Amino acid sequence: MPGAGRAAGVRRLRPQPSEEPPAQEEDQDLLLAGAYVSDAQYNRNVPFETSPQAIRLYYFYNHWTMQVAIYFFICVDLSLALFEEPALFPLPFLATSIAEVLCLTAFFGRLVHFAKVTPQMVFWKDTKNICIMVTIVLTLIDLIIYGSLEAVNIHSVRWSRALRPVFLINFPESRQIRRTFRSIRNTLPDILYVFLLFMFSVLIFSLMALKLFGDRGLQTVEGLPYFTNILEIAFELYVLVTTANSPDVMMPAYNFNWWYSLYFITYIIINTYIFMSVFLAVVYNNYRKHLKNEIRKLAYLKRHKMIEAFNILKVKVGTEFVVTEAQWKRLARIVMPHISSPHLELLLRISDEGQKGHVDKMNFLRLADLLNIQVVTINIKRHPLEEWMPRVYQSSASLLVQRMVRHRIFVWVYDVIILINAIFIALDEKNPFISYAEWLFLSLYIIEILLKLYTYEPRAYFGKKQFWNWFDTLIIIAALVVTVANTTIQSARKYNSQQILDIVLILRILRLLRIIVSIQRFRLIVTTLINIGPTILTFGGLVLVVYYVFAIIGMEAFHGKVRFFDPNFTTPDALVCGNPALKDSAFARDRYCKNNFNDLASSFIVLMELTVVNQWHILAGGFALVTHQAAKLYFISFHVVVVILIVNIFIAFILEAFFVAYSLEKSEVETAIEKKIQELGVGIQEEEMQDGKLVDNMDTKDSGFSGDDGDDKRKALKGLYFRIASKKYRTMDALLQQMFESEIAPEDEGPSLDEILNFSPGDIYPKNPNFENSA
Amino acid sequence: MPGAGRAAGVRRLRPQPSEEPPAQEEDQDLLLAGAYVSDAQYNRNVPFETSPQAIRLYYFYNHWTMQVAIYFFICVDLSLALFEEPALFPLPFLATSIAEVLCLTAFFGRLVHFAKVTPQMVFWKDTKNICIMVTIVLTLIDLIIYGSLEAVNIHSVRWSRALRPVFLINFPESRQIRRTFRSIRNTLPDILYVFLLFMFSVLIFSLMALKLFGDRGLQTVEGLPYFTNILEIAFELYVLVTTANSPDVMMPAYNFNWWYSLYFITYIIINTYIFMSVFLAVVYNNYRKHLKNEIRKLAYLKRHKMIEAFNILKVKVGTEFVVTEAQWKRLARIVMPHISSPHLELLLRISDEGQKGHVDKMNFLRLADLLNIQVVTINIKRHPLEEWMPRVYQSSASLLVQRMVRHRIFVWVYDVIILINAIFIALDEKNPFISYAEWLFLSLYIIEILLKLYTYEPRAYFGKKQFWNWFDTLIIIAALVVTVANTTIQSARKYNSQQILDIVLILRILRLLRIIVSIQRFRLIVTTLINIGPTILTFGGLVLVVYYVFAIIGMEAFHGKVRFFDPNFTTPDALVCGNPALKDSAFARDRYCKNNFNDLASSFIVLMELTVVNQWHILAGGFALVTHQAAKLYFISFHVVVVILIVNIFIAFILEAFFVAYSLEKSEVETAIEKKIQELGVGIQEEEMQDGKLVDNMDTKDSGFSGDDGDDKRKALKGLYFRIASKKYRTMDALLQQMFESEIAPEDEGPSLDEILNFSPGDIYPKNPNFENSA
Repeated sequence: MPGAGRAAGVRRLRPQPSEEPPAQEEDQDLLLAGAYVSDAQYNRNVPFETSPQAIRLYYFYNHWTMQVAIYFFICVDLSLALFEEPALFPLPFLATSIAEVLCLTAFFGRLVHFAKVTPQMVFWKDTKNICIMVTIVLTLIDLIIYGSLEAVNIHSVRWSRALRPVFLINFPESRQIRRTFRSIRNTLPDILYVFLLFMFSVLIFSLMALKLFGDRGLQTVEGLPYFTNILEIAFELYVLVTTANSPDVMMPAYNFNWWYSLYFITYIIINTYIFMSVFLAVVYNNYRKHLKNEIRKLAYLKRHKMIEAFNILKVKVGTEFVVTEAQWKRLARIVMPHISSPHLELLLRISDEGQKGHVDKMNFLRLADLLNIQVVTINIKRHPLEEWMPRVYQSSASLLVQRMVRHRIFVWVYDVIILINAIFIALDEKNPFISYAEWLFLSLYIIEILLKLYTYEPRAYFGKKQFWNWFDTLIIIAALVVTVANTTIQSARKYNSQQILDIVLILRILRLLRIIVSIQRFRLIVTTLINIGPTILTFGGLVLVVYYVFAIIGMEAFHGKVRFFDPNFTTPDALVCGNPALKDSAFARDRYCKNNFNDLASSFIVLMELTVVNQWHILAGGFALVTHQAAKLYFISFHVVVVILIVNIFIAFILEAFFVAYSLEKSEVETAIEKKIQELGVGIQEEEMQDGKLVDNMDTKDSGFSGDDGDDKRKALKGLYFRIASKKYRTMDALLQQMFESEIAPEDEGPSLDEILNFSPGDIYPKNPNFENSA
Repeated sequence: MPGAGRAAGVRRLRPQPSEEPPAQEEDQDLLLAGAYVSDAQYNRNVPFETSPQAIRLYYFYNHWTMQVAIYFFICVDLSLALFEEPALFPLPFLATSIAEVLCLTAFFGRLVHFAKVTPQMVFWKDTKNICIMVTIVLTLIDLIIYGSLEAVNIHSVRWSRALRPVFLINFPESRQIRRTFRSIRNTLPDILYVFLLFMFSVLIFSLMALKLFGDRGLQTVEGLPYFTNILEIAFELYVLVTTANSPDVMMPAYNFNWWYSLYFITYIIINTYIFMSVFLAVVYNNYRKHLKNEIRKLAYLKRHKMIEAFNILKVKVGTEFVVTEAQWKRLARIVMPHISSPHLELLLRISDEGQKGHVDKMNFLRLADLLNIQVVTINIKRHPLEEWMPRVYQSSASLLVQRMVRHRIFVWVYDVIILINAIFIALDEKNPFISYAEWLFLSLYIIEILLKLYTYEPRAYFGKKQFWNWFDTLIIIAALVVTVANTTIQSARKYNSQQILDIVLILRILRLLRIIVSIQRFRLIVTTLINIGPTILTFGGLVLVVYYVFAIIGMEAFHGKVRFFDPNFTTPDALVCGNPALKDSAFARDRYCKNNFNDLASSFIVLMELTVVNQWHILAGGFALVTHQAAKLYFISFHVVVVILIVNIFIAFILEAFFVAYSLEKSEVETAIEKKIQELGVGIQEEEMQDGKLVDNMDTKDSGFSGDDGDDKRKALKGLYFRIASKKYRTMDALLQQMFESEIAPEDEGPSLDEILNFSPGDIYPKNPNFENSA
């Protein structure tokens, strides 16, 4: 939205210079701006008529309350599956159907609103909108049919429930999930050929197995005939690719003759190792191409937008076109209404190097990036206690305490305490002495936090990026509250609440994680993992969509076929999960009765187990017994979609993230702006602050509170500075975008808008690949 | 050796110009030359004194018979484990120990020979040589101790057997395996920190599990207490990372309370998915860095050697140093004695563009690459039948047959025949009609081959790279021979030999693979896989080394503890694998008795099953029951070494190979020489020949015999041409090396020799990574 807002702002600068757009939150990184610009471009949801009403409607469409509302309705719609038959919490059909109609109305309203702020042509060309409308209509039809059949007591299938994730995917806010889906769609043709070849190989091996083992009269451990039916063989061999039935599938043949193991070894090398790696390679390669393409698109789109804005505002001074200082400042104020005057002056100093009173094109194009750089005010925040009672805080005893806390021995002492704590936790807590020790540890931790708050400035200690301080304090406070609550309940009612006890235990153990902070190498790995976090959530969304569809299908097909009885029940019915067809099956023998599709939560857990792959053939076999052999197709297709596609994309993503992190460790990436800021001496490297080399009470520090030499620098540094984002804290996308931008020549106008929108991943390869990027 | 030979040749050019080195085989690609040069450089086994005797000794050392002999002794030494207790084919200790001493003598002799052709200083600095000597001494000591103890009937451990792979690794010929080991060694520090963090995470989760589930009194399916011992929990959770005990390990807790599944889901996401991907990322990243570094080293070493040679031979002509044509020719003839005169003239035409009678430095440096480019003579080879009986062969009936065979309908007809054949194979062959059909198919295939041989020139049909033609013919001939043999035996003795029947069946089914050739996309994937083949063999060597060491240790620890009885035996002893400790264990229940360490072959199969991972905890549990719980450490360390390190390197390798293949598909890589050859019009693209666009009876075609327009071009093209290697058939290393070389400026002399030898992978990153190589 900031991007779109900016473009809108630029446009409105001439006709209605007085009107102010609603407050824009300062966006954190370049990517966000780029992404929004691109999205605005995709949707063309920039108001083309500039009437005040249209603009108000547009800003209302983008207002955060509207977005929260739409997400709320999506959540309600998806969670309806919890209340519909087969339900975790049953509700009458009338209630759920009314809720669903409400949601559909909300989605339709949102769509109408969107149509109002978008040119008709563009609106109807967008497949997203068509998708949503079709889904709404289909859902309504399904509801009516189901409702009327239900009224005459005929039970039918609520098939439209599997369409619900369409709403999650197709609203403009789910850009990341859509991007991943696009990436999957583009991978499909390549994957398909490898998959066909792989299936061909499985079939050839199945034929061989049929001929080699079919007539030997061999038996499996369960006493069933071994490898006599070509379809069963193909299934078993497909399972072997997932390794789930290794080595059991080999044992009868191996027991019969030593040499037959060679058949299975060949099969495993070719199909399990080579083909599965090839799948990963195909998925990864495509992911990579696609990522590069999207980022190139974003970078060019941003450039394009900024050039458009420049062309609207430019005036001719001398021989070149420039933007006057006044216009420039007004624009900056419109885009970012809460910008402080010193901040604006600083930006101007960067943009108008020669103090000529105007900004040239090259510097104007950087405006968006410039606004995205955080500016920090370095002024020494004094500790509140120092202000309230300077004499006590500055007394020699107090200073001694502060020096103690700052010393690294203080950290070590607490590391030792944590280790002792770990040993105590491992010991039996039935011993009263040990449960008293728990109180001791808790108070030691609380003392630590209080001491730190005494020594460090509290606002700095709880700074935005002080992940570990927040983590520590929250864990300790939660542990304190829950332990006290538990003790109160225990002494009052002589009763231990299981849930509360569990929470206490988990909190107690999570405290041990703090030891990671003390080891530098560990901290680096964890930081990388935390940076990946947000994108892992995108995968969460993707997995949710796929799981939801499969869960709905699974519930329609398998609900009620397998029932779970209390594990202490040993009636014959309980032993076969309430279904005689499961007698003597591996499913019943392994007590998998609770792995069923009787409600949404159980279905999700079964699907999770299928994702982990192991024993999936037993689950598939069990559900095939209670329904039909064709049920195995459901499980095979789940395996293909989730394990071969989605898990491989996940692995590709982690690989890529780590490669970027590794290659950055050894090199310097700076944008042109950062270089300029450095030259002018108005920037601070975030690393410098993090490593405690600078002042120790700014709100930008990360960890390592052992800065003793902070005092001298503290005096030297005052005033307003740009904060140059640390490499560690940049997201992968932002980094890649910066790298790409630094490769576009400053005067390069980029391809035309249509070209940009039609970039294909294939274009990305250089004509002559060089050594660095191919190995 | 060619590289070393070349360098030696250059050196000897002045002192003894008359002496000729032994015949050098034309080496196939640039890499080989580079690798040899590098190896010569590493080992300094280039004779520094130029006495004829020393040179003879040096050539004798590098003679192929010596290399075959040393490989033979390595094989004998390694296969001794088959004959020593616990033996597959028992031999008395005296026999095996004499064989071992013989091998050791051979190794020592080879080492002494090597010392004679190497400067003392260099020889003693090389850890490889020290390693071999120490291993020889240790093995002798062990043999003596074991022998004397055996003489007084005390059984001790033959520990030195685990050292045998040292010989395989440390002889200079196993360069590739050493390279992979170096790569693993360099990965270790990075892996170690991730592994420690991972173990820390497993421990934290174990503590949590102990507290959450330990006091619940839950039971596993086998009725054992669930999650009560911290060490057992840690083992179970480690197994869960490999997914081998999912979802069984979760079921008791999940049955008890729905919410506990969240604990396991969290664990699986963090440890199984994220940490395992991070391991792959670390291994892959390191593999990549290392590969690049080695290739850079090779390229610079080659450049260095060639400059050295140039400096010896140069004379001043005008203002620049050059090599005279006569010297250049003599050098080429010494390096490649069997070069034909037209070939040499062609090379000269490339090197001496201006026909000035001398070769300048830049062109001289290319000599090695130039000699490596294959030259083909395009002259129309007539079909032998055409020469013997031209009238019959050129008759209209014969021409019709030839046109039929060349037509693509011919290919389609045979594809249909293969499919029908596949259906017949799948049907029951007890039916006599079907077994007669088999004869029909066999004769159809034979007719196909005969027709093709009639139409195409036989030497072209069985050309070097005609993989599928060779495959076809061999399979058919083998099937014919074995089927005839089988029928003879059957009718003579009324007896079906099992082995022969199995081979017939496999051959029959392998024929179906031909269908792959008909589908273009399949052929591409298979070609890439075949190109990777040679390097996969390197992994074979690596896996062999690791498996051998683990097998020897396993045999010492576990042999005889588990015994296999015939599967039809159902005595109580047979059901517990001859060991009462296994009563009621999962190991015995699953009939894993044949998975034991009672001989080398069985051990290798168990280790293969452990590599596939599934059920490894049951194998580990079984062997822990019959020996000691500490036995699990053996299995865990095998998992860490093989699955976390070696399998990940294997995956990394396949990923990289596919990426290179993909990025080449879209781009053109040509070395400077190839460009020049193209400019001069004396080159033929291998692709052109493969796609059947050119003449169809040259010995360089690949597939696709449907060239109808060959006749015209056939006349146009005659004489000597360079064959420009197809992209498809280049190895990955050669490709990467070419890419890198095309980036070294022609006048760049490269760093000094010492700098080259001390390149570290860390140097490889560019100061400012660019967009292409980071994403």
